[in-house]
Amino acid sequence: MADVDELRLERMRREMGEAGFDALVSCLPENVLYLTNYWPHHGLAMAIFPRAGEPVLLLPEVEAEYADRSWADVRPFGWGLLKDQDPATTLGDRLGRIRDKLGLAKAAIGVEQSFEVVAPPYRAAEPIVPAAPTEALLRRVFSDAKLKDSTELLANLRSLKTPFELERLRLANEIASFGLAAFAKNALPGKTEAEVGAAVEEVIRSLGPGYKGARLARASAEVRAGAGSYDTYLLVPSRDRRIREGEIVLIELAAVIDGYWSDLTRVAVAGEPTEKQREIYDLVLRAQTAAIQKMLPGVSFSEVDRAARQIIEAGGYGKYFVHITGHGIGLRYHEFIPLLHPQVEGRLATGMVSSVEPGVYVPDWGGIRLEDNVAVTEEGPEYLSTFDRTL
Amino acid sequence: MADVDELRLERMRREMGEAGFDALVSCLPENVLYLTNYWPHHGLAMAIFPRAGEPVLLLPEVEAEYADRSWADVRPFGWGLLKDQDPATTLGDRLGRIRDKLGLAKAAIGVEQSFEVVAPPYRAAEPIVPAAPTEALLRRVFSDAKLKDSTELLANLRSLKTPFELERLRLANEIASFGLAAFAKNALPGKTEAEVGAAVEEVIRSLGPGYKGARLARASAEVRAGAGSYDTYLLVPSRDRRIREGEIVLIELAAVIDGYWSDLTRVAVAGEPTEKQREIYDLVLRAQTAAIQKMLPGVSFSEVDRAARQIIEAGGYGKYFVHITGHGIGLRYHEFIPLLHPQVEGRLATGMVSSVEPGVYVPDWGGIRLEDNVAVTEEGPEYLSTFDRTL
Repeated sequence: MADVDELRLERMRREMGEAGFDALVSCLPENVLYLTNYWPHHGLAMAIFPRAGEPVLLLPEVEAEYADRSWADVRPFGWGLLKDQDPATTLGDRLGRIRDKLGLAKAAIGVEQSFEVVAPPYRAAEPIVPAAPTEALLRRVFSDAKLKDSTELLANLRSLKTPFELERLRLANEIASFGLAAFAKNALPGKTEAEVGAAVEEVIRSLGPGYKGARLARASAEVRAGAGSYDTYLLVPSRDRRIREGEIVLIELAAVIDGYWSDLTRVAVAGEPTEKQREIYDLVLRAQTAAIQKMLPGVSFSEVDRAARQIIEAGGYGKYFVHITGHGIGLRYHEFIPLLHPQVEGRLATGMVSSVEPGVYVPDWGGIRLEDNVAVTEEGPEYLSTFDRTL
Repeated sequence: MADVDELRLERMRREMGEAGFDALVSCLPENVLYLTNYWPHHGLAMAIFPRAGEPVLLLPEVEAEYADRSWADVRPFGWGLLKDQDPATTLGDRLGRIRDKLGLAKAAIGVEQSFEVVAPPYRAAEPIVPAAPTEALLRRVFSDAKLKDSTELLANLRSLKTPFELERLRLANEIASFGLAAFAKNALPGKTEAEVGAAVEEVIRSLGPGYKGARLARASAEVRAGAGSYDTYLLVPSRDRRIREGEIVLIELAAVIDGYWSDLTRVAVAGEPTEKQREIYDLVLRAQTAAIQKMLPGVSFSEVDRAARQIIEAGGYGKYFVHITGHGIGLRYHEFIPLLHPQVEGRLATGMVSSVEPGVYVPDWGGIRLEDNVAVTEEGPEYLSTFDRTL
């Protein structure tokens, strides 16, 4: 067993007590990671986290060697081979024994009901998520217990990152920056958008595993050039279109290292920037910097948004900044706390991490966005991503 | 609007009638694709498919231009920008109007309840899946209707591929084969497993978009070398371990093109194969070929499995072939019909597509598996993947 995030565990137990949960049972990979420090490969793992007592991690045998950093009592079960039973039967048996051992037969159990947006397990090609069969399994095993939704509790807890978590988010950003370096090198006239994005992902996938203790790395890079960078106000795919001399090239990069996410955007110009490109880029960079400077404990979400928005408005591009200034990030690509939105209520607190990503999108011209992940600390805002921000 | 898969639509309407569904409402990307010929980017799209009448596709505005190949009535809604309402409100309003227009207020509506294993939307970094909020939305909008699980109906329908679907699965396999070529070129001493896997994904991500009408491509390649190839009896990640001269190198490759999947395995030797490597490779290839020759309409799943298994048993490696011979594939990386398993009942039918993937895994030595995707046709088994199968 490696490090234990004592602060996380202590907060969890306190908040579970206040919210009236005796135990949490989670299948979503992001919550399994939060409760046990193990990021599932497939999504068949299950975490049982009692308020008092040792957490348990049920997981397929083939994943067991990857759970060496978990602080839970790791119990592998057979799955996927001819010798194995149906996982619902196996999990039902195991869970029944854990229920009895932990005295949870009549307990208040937190279960996952309202999630919808999910972070995939490492095996993003085929996530497994709890639906009716898991609900039936839990109702059968915990037939005398009270099951209630733990989504909000876990979202609130997860919004306050511990030093343990910040260290891992810094590493995710550091590995993501290898991808940004590949972007800067590849955003050239003649390359297709898809080629540039693929080169970025290739670097993260090949260099990530083994880097400073990282084990599992995935990345998704979408690149848009020219007027097509306009559409990047929301997430859009790379195309086979070739970059032309002088065009804006924008990358939206998601990278995940052992379950911890980074969400970054950079812009390059494939040639010498025009005056307008420089003007808008500088405006966006100033807006981002101003918002980040506001990221102190106690400041409202809307005030941070306002700091970015008023600079872009003063520059004459207010109506082209069509989205929010930022969103939480951690064990998912997009978390909902904080939400740096003009109308969402809430205040920053130490440990929150947000993307800060103002952008200006001019129809038939293109879009420029700059995005970094920033932590709210006692000492002021901390950039988790330190990659170069000059055009 | 492009081609319409009339055979699919005709079968769906007939089977819906027999199973007593007046309409289906789907959010899972794989089912949205099946019902409307549109593969969602985010997972916020919703398909409404009435037994009588025109299907409707609700999707975020930013995705609308990608729905040009859909046969549904495409209705974009605002999502994700400051101007937009909460998607639950938007979807509730839209869905209520569609319910009334199609006369579904008191209908039998098929909804997704028992799925658990899901195919991600294009944006695999953050799938959105229906959970309690979608269930509440559907119960509110269809308060006088009868909601029942459509999972089995859709799985059965999807197991019989139409010519329209086979054409797209061939294309997915063709693009995946660019990745296999990169594997053959890169599986060399001195490279890390992660580097080889990353090079494979890079080729598919960069060459896929635009190839013969393909638009969206993703790939996940896991590579294992030496004794570590033993563990590939289930899905395991690439590591930063360097390949050594003479080692077995195994790739497990998942590729998805516009929502249609390919699942392939190849083995290379980083140098001159030993006699034992050749012996086991030839045995596995013979087992695979024998199983594929059995893939005719009416043959039982277990008979196909048996054809592969008895060759491996006769070769003396029976106890090292620890998994099934194959599984369905189509709009998901693994589908459950057919399941080429010694004890699962069922018979092949024209249009079924299965992986055929016998393997031999020798502890402390390594594993050799060979996997292709094969369609059952009137004219006999068809390899959808034609990439070289010599060692």
